Amino acid sequence: MATLGSATKKHKVTIVGSGNWGTTMAKIVAENVKAHPQLFEEVVQMWVYEEEVVIDKKSRHYNASSPLCKGTQKLSKVINELHENVKYLPNITLPPNVIANPSLEDAARDSTLLVFVIPHQFIARICDRLKGNILSYARGISCTKGVDVSDKGIQLFSESIGQRLGIYCGALSGANIATEIAQGKYSETTVAYDPPPIDSRQPSPTPSPSESTTDLVVRTNGCSGERSVVLHPLPIDYPPLSHENVKKLFHRPYFHVRMVSDVAGVSLGGALKNVVALAAGFMDGLGWGDNAKAAVMRVGLLEMVKFGTRFFSSSCRPSTFTEESCGMADVVTSCMGGRNFRCAKLAIERGMSVEDVEKAELNGQKLQGTSTAYEVHSFLKSQGMVDEFPLFTAVYNILEGQTKAEDIPDLIEPKD
Amino acid sequence: MATLGSATKKHKVTIVGSGNWGTTMAKIVAENVKAHPQLFEEVVQMWVYEEEVVIDKKSRHYNASSPLCKGTQKLSKVINELHENVKYLPNITLPPNVIANPSLEDAARDSTLLVFVIPHQFIARICDRLKGNILSYARGISCTKGVDVSDKGIQLFSESIGQRLGIYCGALSGANIATEIAQGKYSETTVAYDPPPIDSRQPSPTPSPSESTTDLVVRTNGCSGERSVVLHPLPIDYPPLSHENVKKLFHRPYFHVRMVSDVAGVSLGGALKNVVALAAGFMDGLGWGDNAKAAVMRVGLLEMVKFGTRFFSSSCRPSTFTEESCGMADVVTSCMGGRNFRCAKLAIERGMSVEDVEKAELNGQKLQGTSTAYEVHSFLKSQGMVDEFPLFTAVYNILEGQTKAEDIPDLIEPKD
Repeated sequence: MATLGSATKKHKVTIVGSGNWGTTMAKIVAENVKAHPQLFEEVVQMWVYEEEVVIDKKSRHYNASSPLCKGTQKLSKVINELHENVKYLPNITLPPNVIANPSLEDAARDSTLLVFVIPHQFIARICDRLKGNILSYARGISCTKGVDVSDKGIQLFSESIGQRLGIYCGALSGANIATEIAQGKYSETTVAYDPPPIDSRQPSPTPSPSESTTDLVVRTNGCSGERSVVLHPLPIDYPPLSHENVKKLFHRPYFHVRMVSDVAGVSLGGALKNVVALAAGFMDGLGWGDNAKAAVMRVGLLEMVKFGTRFFSSSCRPSTFTEESCGMADVVTSCMGGRNFRCAKLAIERGMSVEDVEKAELNGQKLQGTSTAYEVHSFLKSQGMVDEFPLFTAVYNILEGQTKAEDIPDLIEPKD
Repeated sequence: MATLGSATKKHKVTIVGSGNWGTTMAKIVAENVKAHPQLFEEVVQMWVYEEEVVIDKKSRHYNASSPLCKGTQKLSKVINELHENVKYLPNITLPPNVIANPSLEDAARDSTLLVFVIPHQFIARICDRLKGNILSYARGISCTKGVDVSDKGIQLFSESIGQRLGIYCGALSGANIATEIAQGKYSETTVAYDPPPIDSRQPSPTPSPSESTTDLVVRTNGCSGERSVVLHPLPIDYPPLSHENVKKLFHRPYFHVRMVSDVAGVSLGGALKNVVALAAGFMDGLGWGDNAKAAVMRVGLLEMVKFGTRFFSSSCRPSTFTEESCGMADVVTSCMGGRNFRCAKLAIERGMSVEDVEKAELNGQKLQGTSTAYEVHSFLKSQGMVDEFPLFTAVYNILEGQTKAEDIPDLIEPKD
């Protein structure tokens, strides 16, 4: 079979994270490893940040005589006994081959594929704990939306993970509301995986799992300058991680995957769409109707293209934004009812700042769109390019109280 | 002034049509001719299909002592006295330089620019009446959405108008709900105008308005084969109809215009988006959520690109669909709440056919999306390409009762 190459081993997959989206990914991946037993080991480890939970009396699992329903229990134990993440993905049954593991190091041990689904603020410390405890030739996929933008530069979370662990890391992003997908409702996503040349080798007559002779220094091209990672080739006794095989890990009849090579575009899409969603919310808040909303979505999408191709020029393709789920479709979903959209709309309707709406409505949670708008603005300012991104700049100025939402059409009108 | 060339004359503009969208276009154009008196004559003629109307007692214009409010009145007279199209665009004041004219021939006489805003089924008979009554070197812009697709071929309405009148005709389309624009709410549109070489001539030392020496045979490239039109050059004593000058006729602070050269893409966008809106309505009717809706919008947009580039290859650009108001933005608007979307959604929710919903809800009006879906299917079948457009085909089959909406994900899954 072409997909197997000269493989004698199988890929072990670990999901790093077990929130709403992480548990959904574990479900998808566990269904797929069962469907492709020639490529993947059957058990999917899911690292769980251990918490104490109580099975609620209203739960479908409540049974007064069960020891599990007496007092507090460890979340990992509850997941493994009930095959449900009662806290973060309730009422969804997980396949029995998802194994919740409270030990990060143990869950990741001997895994060739690590799927990261963690809040961005935990990336550094989780990578610190994993470093030295994973296979040198492991590969990663980052499902954490967003990028780390500052006035010093831009770093994709996939780059950040890859550099901290010394591995190659791709990205997954799309119009993906987790709960809908967990229920098996139809959805699409985009997976960017750009295998380094060392992974596309032909099997040699005498397969050697030795890595030292073919390590490759890979340069990443984030705007903050080149950084180097020494990559270790995947031993050829594993099936190659081609687009075809990576797709098999994520694609389901209800979760359609398109594979691309543009990691930057996929990562940027998930971040910048939240800024566009704020602009769309402002339009709706003004009661300006669907024309106006569609107009700022279109202008926003083109600023996303410009941002990607300007600052990640060698790798970023316009079509990733205009044609893929991680671009156009995610903009659409986020502008129809995401929380950035809703808070921006409420801010205009109530005559409040977005920050005050956030405090009043989100119960301590933070909007991704506002922090991204600030980071993007700070970066554009450092590059002297504020005027070339008039919609992103207008959103920043509205958040700052320096511009009115009503001025958006004037501000984004092309000057020619 | 560069925009004027060696002009001594001004363009006279006529709006052919006075419905909801036609009257809105008349308002926009009349505002712009006032703003650019060096390019355009001040009076904008608007041809009105004459009807009898009664000023309602609830109208803001009702005045028991006014003769205009006694019995039935001619619509054109009411528009000219009240500066309002009380029947098709009520409560919007028109600029006084819009002159309603019930005589088609008189309204169009000596006009160099004809803006067509008529239902597509009237194109043939209106062109028959205009033929021989317009300037041979007039130019047109078709605002009629859609294309004439049959198993014999595809013809753009702009092509149809151009051929029938022997003039060049461009197209205007975008995410444009007329009433919102008439109220001055922010919107965008796309104008395709691809001036034939004879119009981009340099003024000669001895300007001659004679046409006979420089007539140009222009071949159009609709799928049904080449057709020829003998075009007469615009005399150089008129300002050139460059993108810059055509934009000035339509662009307003609340109505942003992007000029392109892709007439086919602009025309197809306004037609095919209605098929996509039906698919989006099916997803919403199933209660499948925003991921699913965004997914079919994305897949639909790419089928639009494929349709345009496959059947209008020499002139049609993917970016017209993925980056312009007439493409991506119009898909968004139509899938948020247009009537095709709503009827498709209701059909699923009520377990009825779309046709029955149309009869029950639309008071005799017809959905554009269903007729386009049938025409497109008939055409694709004649080309043996039904399988290459799985979403368009699925919509057709659902309308025919041969497929269930639930099967859309399977049907549009790429086979690889």
